[in-house]
Amino acid sequence: MNRPDVGELRPPVRTLMGPGPSDVHPRVLRAMATPLVGHLDPAFVEMMDETQELLRYAFRTDNQWTIPVSGTGSASMEAAIGNLVEPGETMLVPTNGYFGGRMAEMARRAGGEVVEVDAPWGEPLDPAAVQEAFDEHQPDVFGFVHAETSTGVRQPSVPELTSIAHDHDAYVVADCVTSLGGVELEVDEWDVDVAYSGPQKCLSCPPGASPLTLNDRAMDKVLSREEPARSWYLDLSLLEGYWGDERAYHHTAPITNVYALREALRLVAEEGIEERWERHRRVAGALKAGVEAMGLEMNAADEYWLPSLNAVRVPAGAAAGAVIDDLLASYDLEIAGGLGDLAGEIFRIGCMGHSARPDNVSFLVSALGETLADHGADVDVGAGTETVASEL
Amino acid sequence: MNRPDVGELRPPVRTLMGPGPSDVHPRVLRAMATPLVGHLDPAFVEMMDETQELLRYAFRTDNQWTIPVSGTGSASMEAAIGNLVEPGETMLVPTNGYFGGRMAEMARRAGGEVVEVDAPWGEPLDPAAVQEAFDEHQPDVFGFVHAETSTGVRQPSVPELTSIAHDHDAYVVADCVTSLGGVELEVDEWDVDVAYSGPQKCLSCPPGASPLTLNDRAMDKVLSREEPARSWYLDLSLLEGYWGDERAYHHTAPITNVYALREALRLVAEEGIEERWERHRRVAGALKAGVEAMGLEMNAADEYWLPSLNAVRVPAGAAAGAVIDDLLASYDLEIAGGLGDLAGEIFRIGCMGHSARPDNVSFLVSALGETLADHGADVDVGAGTETVASEL
Repeated sequence: MNRPDVGELRPPVRTLMGPGPSDVHPRVLRAMATPLVGHLDPAFVEMMDETQELLRYAFRTDNQWTIPVSGTGSASMEAAIGNLVEPGETMLVPTNGYFGGRMAEMARRAGGEVVEVDAPWGEPLDPAAVQEAFDEHQPDVFGFVHAETSTGVRQPSVPELTSIAHDHDAYVVADCVTSLGGVELEVDEWDVDVAYSGPQKCLSCPPGASPLTLNDRAMDKVLSREEPARSWYLDLSLLEGYWGDERAYHHTAPITNVYALREALRLVAEEGIEERWERHRRVAGALKAGVEAMGLEMNAADEYWLPSLNAVRVPAGAAAGAVIDDLLASYDLEIAGGLGDLAGEIFRIGCMGHSARPDNVSFLVSALGETLADHGADVDVGAGTETVASEL
Repeated sequence: MNRPDVGELRPPVRTLMGPGPSDVHPRVLRAMATPLVGHLDPAFVEMMDETQELLRYAFRTDNQWTIPVSGTGSASMEAAIGNLVEPGETMLVPTNGYFGGRMAEMARRAGGEVVEVDAPWGEPLDPAAVQEAFDEHQPDVFGFVHAETSTGVRQPSVPELTSIAHDHDAYVVADCVTSLGGVELEVDEWDVDVAYSGPQKCLSCPPGASPLTLNDRAMDKVLSREEPARSWYLDLSLLEGYWGDERAYHHTAPITNVYALREALRLVAEEGIEERWERHRRVAGALKAGVEAMGLEMNAADEYWLPSLNAVRVPAGAAAGAVIDDLLASYDLEIAGGLGDLAGEIFRIGCMGHSARPDNVSFLVSALGETLADHGADVDVGAGTETVASEL
């Protein structure tokens, strides 16, 4: 068997303005180059505590049970759903985006029944429709997406949703993958039982260790399941042994990813969580104003615009895929297209964490404008760039 | 809510000679500090291909279906077992160490029945016992641990085991967590259907993306399951869409961990896999000779000694836990104690990847000797260090 001849690691230098990963902060990259200690080393145990404390701050929660799951955002999602939903239970999931479908699939694999609360892709859930679905199906678990990465929609009125669920004694699981650390999120105040996220969005940390928080009520349910969760790797009753007081070995934690997450969360604390939300609003606001001034249309209405993920309608005359490819080839700039019901109809432009910077937004609007014009779309590039400059 | 005040990342500088993680090579640390590209970036897709090619070289396989799973070694283990074992099927698992128990637990959660092939902790499996278990139980899937991290035992006569399994039309799953890249492993020649590993052992890469390989026969079984695997995150039929020709989005890959694994595997290819096995034999051989010369006893017999994980009997007069704590506190040197049936009875001393170096082994033998002597054990430290020096 021949030795493969694989060259040095020399990835192109991209500006990441897609749905994630976002640009990683240099301090987080530096943290990732730090030599390892063992996953049971007293020094690491202390860093675990610190990371948990920082995660609570970002989630705005006092939940004891707040940890990074050893995997990407989908792993924390499956940890949440797979532990909360027991075989035969019913989970109510949303239809208004790609990630509702993923929630449904995970609930089914956990042995649950799935019912849906309807809303079109690109719209938020209507509390009246949620109320109706609860009255009809009496679900045990209710999932919703706080910041829908596939449509650029922020779910407003979260406390109304959680209150409907709790009136029906159900548990609430919130997908906060694209909101944590970038968009207002108040886990305790909004009475969310379980929330999960990914690190590579508004936290600007490489993927690999993903935030999850459960309140005592939810954790009590997990710890009193009749049969164990179907995943051993993601079994929270076992992870509790490692992340809780006992520090019992479960699996080898992704030490470097915890280093990185800790550093990314330190940056959140240094900036201040509310100041960080405000930065995302301001910088993404300039992006939104710029593309609108250029003549483009946002996919989501202003009331539920999601600063971290800007879904922009593809203008007539331009093919989304070709524009995206050109931006990557000519500008080393990554944005993405639509998924599912919105494939070909929108651009998805992230403005997250370390990528939510004036220079990035300025570059994005001008490069997108030029490229669209090259592709024959009727856009006023000058109006766009001028607006960005004045808004920033 | 107060902002947590968490200081700079300043872990102690340890020498890692425990059961993993091992010392990470500086080039791999440097790879981890590399800025990210997107998980669907053409440049990343190329790196994925290269990583797969390098992984095949390390596994000694031509299996097309060879990937890093997005999680730690236990995730690749669960991906293997959870996809191979279908509800109602029987899996035969070993009793000769901690990780056989983990295999059993994962098989049960996949909906399988578990039967055991007996061998005491610290002994390899006897092919006659495997034959007998097959005749009695006719299992569908057979798991064994090639390099048992809990006992320091290397399973000899693997081709005999796989041939028994295949005579009974069963699938073979091999745990190679502590052998891949350090100890002879021949996936194709030995006719292993599925093998998994972790990156933080003999590959000396931070944990977070874990090697897995399946031959076509095993992948056919996975792709023709009656019901989907119970984990969506680890569903190999879906991962096939991302890592195969289609490149369809499944989840955001842990990009940095793939960078690191690629670099760690480049180091394997540069050294040459056979030369690497030989280095482990030689350097760990000096370690073994040194502790034996000092008057200590290995737990495993020479015929199934595992160079990457040296299980050394705790001598009379010394308490394992206190010795391990002292080595960490006084020497910044990590080793570990026994698990399960061997708790308190053995030291587990890793000699893996970048940690399998003359300087590390020399330091280990002298620090261990001094510490044991301090704790009242009857050891000849001089004989130990002299032997190491002459063997290296």
